[in-house]
Amino acid sequence: MDQTPRIAPPSPEIAALAQQRLAGLATPAGALGRIGEVGAWLAAAQGEVPPRPLTDVRLVVFAGDHGVAAHGVSAYPAAVTEAMVRTIVAGQAGVSALAREHDVRVSVLDVAVDADLSDLPTDVTARKVRRGSGAIHLEDALTRDEVERSLELGAAVAGELVDDGAQLLMTGDLGIGNTTPAAALVAALLGLPADEVTGHGTGIDDDGWARKRDVVATALARTEGRGDDPVDLLAALGSADLAAAVGFLVESSTRGVPVLLDGLMSVACAVVAQALAPGAAAWWVAGHRSTEPAQAHALKSLGLEPLLDVGMRLGEGSGAVAALPVLRSGVAVLRDVALLSDILPG
Amino acid sequence: MDQTPRIAPPSPEIAALAQQRLAGLATPAGALGRIGEVGAWLAAAQGEVPPRPLTDVRLVVFAGDHGVAAHGVSAYPAAVTEAMVRTIVAGQAGVSALAREHDVRVSVLDVAVDADLSDLPTDVTARKVRRGSGAIHLEDALTRDEVERSLELGAAVAGELVDDGAQLLMTGDLGIGNTTPAAALVAALLGLPADEVTGHGTGIDDDGWARKRDVVATALARTEGRGDDPVDLLAALGSADLAAAVGFLVESSTRGVPVLLDGLMSVACAVVAQALAPGAAAWWVAGHRSTEPAQAHALKSLGLEPLLDVGMRLGEGSGAVAALPVLRSGVAVLRDVALLSDILPG
Repeated sequence: MDQTPRIAPPSPEIAALAQQRLAGLATPAGALGRIGEVGAWLAAAQGEVPPRPLTDVRLVVFAGDHGVAAHGVSAYPAAVTEAMVRTIVAGQAGVSALAREHDVRVSVLDVAVDADLSDLPTDVTARKVRRGSGAIHLEDALTRDEVERSLELGAAVAGELVDDGAQLLMTGDLGIGNTTPAAALVAALLGLPADEVTGHGTGIDDDGWARKRDVVATALARTEGRGDDPVDLLAALGSADLAAAVGFLVESSTRGVPVLLDGLMSVACAVVAQALAPGAAAWWVAGHRSTEPAQAHALKSLGLEPLLDVGMRLGEGSGAVAALPVLRSGVAVLRDVALLSDILPG
Repeated sequence: MDQTPRIAPPSPEIAALAQQRLAGLATPAGALGRIGEVGAWLAAAQGEVPPRPLTDVRLVVFAGDHGVAAHGVSAYPAAVTEAMVRTIVAGQAGVSALAREHDVRVSVLDVAVDADLSDLPTDVTARKVRRGSGAIHLEDALTRDEVERSLELGAAVAGELVDDGAQLLMTGDLGIGNTTPAAALVAALLGLPADEVTGHGTGIDDDGWARKRDVVATALARTEGRGDDPVDLLAALGSADLAAAVGFLVESSTRGVPVLLDGLMSVACAVVAQALAPGAAAWWVAGHRSTEPAQAHALKSLGLEPLLDVGMRLGEGSGAVAALPVLRSGVAVLRDVALLSDILPG
C-alpha cells in the first residue's frame, strides 16, 4: 500500500448547512450539546441535511494472537482468543448482545488467530494472514509483505461493506495480549515512554503490569527510529489483526464513510491510519473512553473526545456499539425537532 | 402528604444474584464497566435475574411558570413555556425526537403554566394547580396547601403509570426560569451559597448570571432556617411543577419502580424527595451530567454518577431519554452474553 494522498474531509458546505439547521431548531443554542454536534457531523459525512437514519451499521472484529501473550502480559491464556472467536460466531459474546440490542451487524475475521478455525464459515476464515504475530520485544511482529497483505485485506473488507450499503462502520478487536502492541504503537507514534501507555488490559495485577511495561519498553528500544514509516512501524510493533484494522480505517475514510471508533485497539489503529493517510480522522468519531491510558493519549492526538465514559474495557468493538445510540440521538434531533421559525408566531 | 417512612431498597438477595450472574459472564471481571453495574441494579429493581427488556418506559414532563422569570434570570421570555408545551404535545420538541428514537412514551402535564391551555387534551390540563408560582426572592412560591396538592398529583400520576405497567420512569421539566428555584432548593438543602449553585440555564449572559445569582441569594436569605421541612421548603423556594415531580419520585420509589433521572430539575427534585422519603434514592440512576453546577452538587449528595456527559442542557427529560440506551445495554449483556461456564471446556 502506497502512502495515500491526503484524504478530503466531509463537505464543508454540507457541514455549514447542518450547523445552520442545528442552530434553527426549537431548542436553545447549544442545548443539545454533543448530541447536536455529532448529528451535524454525521450529516456532513453523509452529504445530506438532515442526516439519514442509521439503519445499516457494521462492525468488523479483527481477531489475532500476539507473541507477547506467552510472556506474562495478559490475565488470560492465548487459548481464550479462539474460544472468543467461536463465542462471537455463536452470537453469545458481550459485543453480540450489545449489537443485537442496538441493531449492528457484526462479523469476526480471523486475521491471525493461533489456532485452526477452518471449521468456521469461510467469511470468518478465508483471509487469514498467519497464525499469531511475533513477540514484539524479541522480533518484528510481521514482515513488510505481511503488513501490506493485512492492510489490503482490511481495505477490501471495508470496501465490500461500503459497496453493500453500510452507512457507518466500526472496528473491533479480539486477541489475548493485543493491548501490548497497541500501546507500543501509540508510544512510538506519539513519542511516549512505556510507563505512560501501559495499562491493565483485561485485568492484570501489578506484577503483570510491570512485566507488560517492560515488554513495551524493550520493544520500543528494539525498534527505535522506525516510527516515521507507518508500514514499517506495523511490521515492527503491530500485528496482522491491527494492520488489517488500519487498512479498514484508511479505506473507510477514502470511500467517505464515517467510522465510530472503539477502545484502545481501534484508536491505536486510527493513529496509524491517520499517519498513513493524513486527513482520515475527519471521518471518525470516538465511541467511548476505555480505561487504557494509551487510548487517552491516542484520542488526544486525534483531537477526538469520546461520547461515552462508562469504564468499559471489554474490546470486541463493544464500546463503539454501546455509544451508537448517541449518534442516533443526533440524527433524530436534526431530523425530527421543529424549527423555531415554524413554531413561533410571526 | 405525611413524611413517608424509610423506603426499602431493591432486594439485596436479587442484587447479589445479579452480581453473581454479571461475574459469571464470558467477559473479564469488570470489563463491562457501568453497563454491567446498571444492568445488575436494574435486575435488583425489577426483582428478576436476568432483568426483563425495557419495553415500557415513560417520561412525564412537569410544566410550569416561575415568578422569577419576570426578573431577568432567563435568556427567554415566559411565553416560551406555553409554546414548548404545545410543541411537546405536537411531538416536535427535542425530547419528542429523542423519545421516538429510543421508544419512550412522553406525556406533558400543565401543573402551573401561566397561560390558558384549556384547548389541549385533558390529560395535559386536568390537574393544573395554579398559573405560575411565586417569585421566590420576593414571596413564597406556593402555599403549603398547594405544595400538598402538587405532591399528591405527582404521586397520582406515577401510581397510574405503574398500574399501567411502566417498567421505568423519568421526570422531565419545562418552564422558563425553572433553574432558579431548582438551584435554590439544592442550595438550601445542601447548605451551599448562591454562587456555587447558579448556572447559565438555557444560555444567559454574564450580567444575567449575576442577576440570577442575586435572586437565589435573596431567596435563600429570605427563607433561612426553613430547610428542615421539605414540604415547607417547596413552599418557600420551589414551584408547583417541581413539587409535583417530587411527589412523582417519592411514589415511584414507594411502588418499587426504578427511575432514570434527568438534569438539574429532576435531580434537585430527587434531593427533596430523598429528604422527604429517606431511602428513595436507591431506586434511581442518574442519566446525564448537565452543565448546571447545582446538578453536580445534587448528584454528589445522592451518591449518583451520571451515565452520559455530553454537555446537554435542554431540559424536558431529554438527558434521561438520551441515556436510556445505556440501561438497555446493561439489560442486554445480562440477558444474552454466554456464561463462562458454558463456553469453556471442562
